[in-house]
Amino acid sequence: MINQSLVGLIEACMASDRVEGIYGAHRGIQGILDEDFYDLSNELPENLEGVAVTPCAALRSIRKKPTHDDCERVLEVFQAHNVRYFFYIGGNDSAETALILNKVAVAEGYDIRLFHVPKTVDNDLLVTDHCPGYGSAARFVALALMGDNEDNRSLPGIKVDVIMGRDAGWLTAASRLARTREEDGPHLIYVPERVFDMDSFLGDVEDAYKKYGRCLIAVSEGIHDAQGQLIAKSKETDAFGNQQLSGSGALGDQLVSQIKKLGDGLRVRADTFGYLQRSFFGIVSKLDCEEAREVGHAAVRFATEGDAPHGSVVIQRDGEGMNYTPRYELAAIHEVARNTKVLEERYIVGDNGICESFLDYVAPLVGELPHSTRLSAVRVPKKLE
Amino acid sequence: MINQSLVGLIEACMASDRVEGIYGAHRGIQGILDEDFYDLSNELPENLEGVAVTPCAALRSIRKKPTHDDCERVLEVFQAHNVRYFFYIGGNDSAETALILNKVAVAEGYDIRLFHVPKTVDNDLLVTDHCPGYGSAARFVALALMGDNEDNRSLPGIKVDVIMGRDAGWLTAASRLARTREEDGPHLIYVPERVFDMDSFLGDVEDAYKKYGRCLIAVSEGIHDAQGQLIAKSKETDAFGNQQLSGSGALGDQLVSQIKKLGDGLRVRADTFGYLQRSFFGIVSKLDCEEAREVGHAAVRFATEGDAPHGSVVIQRDGEGMNYTPRYELAAIHEVARNTKVLEERYIVGDNGICESFLDYVAPLVGELPHSTRLSAVRVPKKLE
Repeated sequence: MINQSLVGLIEACMASDRVEGIYGAHRGIQGILDEDFYDLSNELPENLEGVAVTPCAALRSIRKKPTHDDCERVLEVFQAHNVRYFFYIGGNDSAETALILNKVAVAEGYDIRLFHVPKTVDNDLLVTDHCPGYGSAARFVALALMGDNEDNRSLPGIKVDVIMGRDAGWLTAASRLARTREEDGPHLIYVPERVFDMDSFLGDVEDAYKKYGRCLIAVSEGIHDAQGQLIAKSKETDAFGNQQLSGSGALGDQLVSQIKKLGDGLRVRADTFGYLQRSFFGIVSKLDCEEAREVGHAAVRFATEGDAPHGSVVIQRDGEGMNYTPRYELAAIHEVARNTKVLEERYIVGDNGICESFLDYVAPLVGELPHSTRLSAVRVPKKLE
Repeated sequence: MINQSLVGLIEACMASDRVEGIYGAHRGIQGILDEDFYDLSNELPENLEGVAVTPCAALRSIRKKPTHDDCERVLEVFQAHNVRYFFYIGGNDSAETALILNKVAVAEGYDIRLFHVPKTVDNDLLVTDHCPGYGSAARFVALALMGDNEDNRSLPGIKVDVIMGRDAGWLTAASRLARTREEDGPHLIYVPERVFDMDSFLGDVEDAYKKYGRCLIAVSEGIHDAQGQLIAKSKETDAFGNQQLSGSGALGDQLVSQIKKLGDGLRVRADTFGYLQRSFFGIVSKLDCEEAREVGHAAVRFATEGDAPHGSVVIQRDGEGMNYTPRYELAAIHEVARNTKVLEERYIVGDNGICESFLDYVAPLVGELPHSTRLSAVRVPKKLE
């Protein structure tokens, strides 16, 4: 989805007579520091449409938090190229980068209009109703769980699916979409908004296994104990201090080894969805594509026609259900940056459930899903002992 | 795809005046032993179409190798219900079950026509050109790698993707479809047809990383050392003696820990695609759907109109390229059962590559894929030091 927003920005800049040239920084803030820009002014519409449906940042990405010196350098580069509008696409960390840059620009009196454009599969930005990228990743999770529910039903056992989400359970909660019958999984859903207690977990799994003859479990990678310690142990952290969680099967395997203690010969498996959730080619929500494009358009509109010199674009809903109308507004960057919007309390049931009302929130973002169908299942009377 | 073949069997049986009733065994051989049958004679066409597109065995599955006593019981149950045609859908292990049953039936003089209907994402059945289920799983792998290639390009590092395939590299080889430019990954592909040497592997990774500034690696879960020992250590085996490999992130994590030794601060990640490859809802190859349905039709045709009392349905290709014509034939079950068709030697390049000619084989099975598109990427001249 990040490329949908990029293309939205390019299109809108091309259409604005206030904009004289369009540069794309190669690897975000790093590209600015290196004065490494692509000239996007002459991209052909057809090529842009191809870029828009290609997953992952076409301009490439970086995990880097700018220092004060970096910010000085950025302003120097901006000045050299007469950059007067700046758009930075990403989640909380990107918003933080935008905020830091903006503070320095304001302090130095450099005349720039600077905007954060939201994009995160984590859906954990404050103010906005939801984030571009989330609907498509949630669609991937829903389809994966729907299929895995059939797999688990076909060859019963206990199955753990580990889903992205360090601090917020939005993406894991989307697994709830797979549960269209009472017997369907996921039977248990664990999000970072609740303390994860291993003994309670094992008890829950045992109960569900007794009840359903199988058990499908969705777990956020960010589950943690009462002290806030992650259940998944990780030694690696990024520039923003985030621990590495994705790209490892450790949490799933750890839960499997605990569950296996419940009984000899139990069939227990784990899958960690990892980077497929954010990069799988072609699994997109149509609405997500439209909104991601439109936040790009809106950002340029705010920048070139609005009064606010900086801000973060947010999406609000008008109306309810599958056909709500998105409304694009501007929030202060400092309201969005760094902070995390966790999964709302009203959507969580007990320690391991997501309630039906969450479906009203998530279903329109994900779009229509296929249906699983059962044989009508009339049993043949037995003729033998 | 297994349900496409099931529906094909039901449809064709409904249309045949030789068939008086259609029973489905709940969990394969186990359902026969338990005399646990569904009456499928009155399934409505609309419901069957829904079942056909639902992933994973609608009749549910089992891992069970029948003993001689089991076979006696099966014949007793068949006799009680006057079962005279028998179709068993699955891979080598299912073919083996069909073979064992058939031998006992022949020995006891029980009059039955018994057929194996192929279905395996592993694509490792002998005689047949390819197996129903493979094209769709290969499509999943191709789309996953295409997206992951963009992810790896956007935020460079070394990425390992672990793909299903214990004894044969067919599914892992399908990752080659993602490589449409020389710089695209997967840059290295490891299949079980080659001995995996950790030192050579680390050397290959280092070289590729130097060359491309990143490295995307596809690895079969079944890679093993010169002694045939699996690199992924597993303690669990099934009824056919197969070691558990999927449902664990251990191999990926193990390779990551080795690769990290190549240098401090290297960004190394692994994803294990696991059960998503065989169960993801909605990622199917159209041709695979058609062929899977048609092997069901063909099996009933062979059973009710042909001369052979038993056999395994195989697919052959007439013509080449995207629009070949599939031809359905019958092979002896003993030619198919137990044995494994490994990835053909002519498709493997060195120790870590799949050659372009493999694309002629796999592309028609997978169907048309989307394209990744790049920005035209004109660099802006620098103005500063």
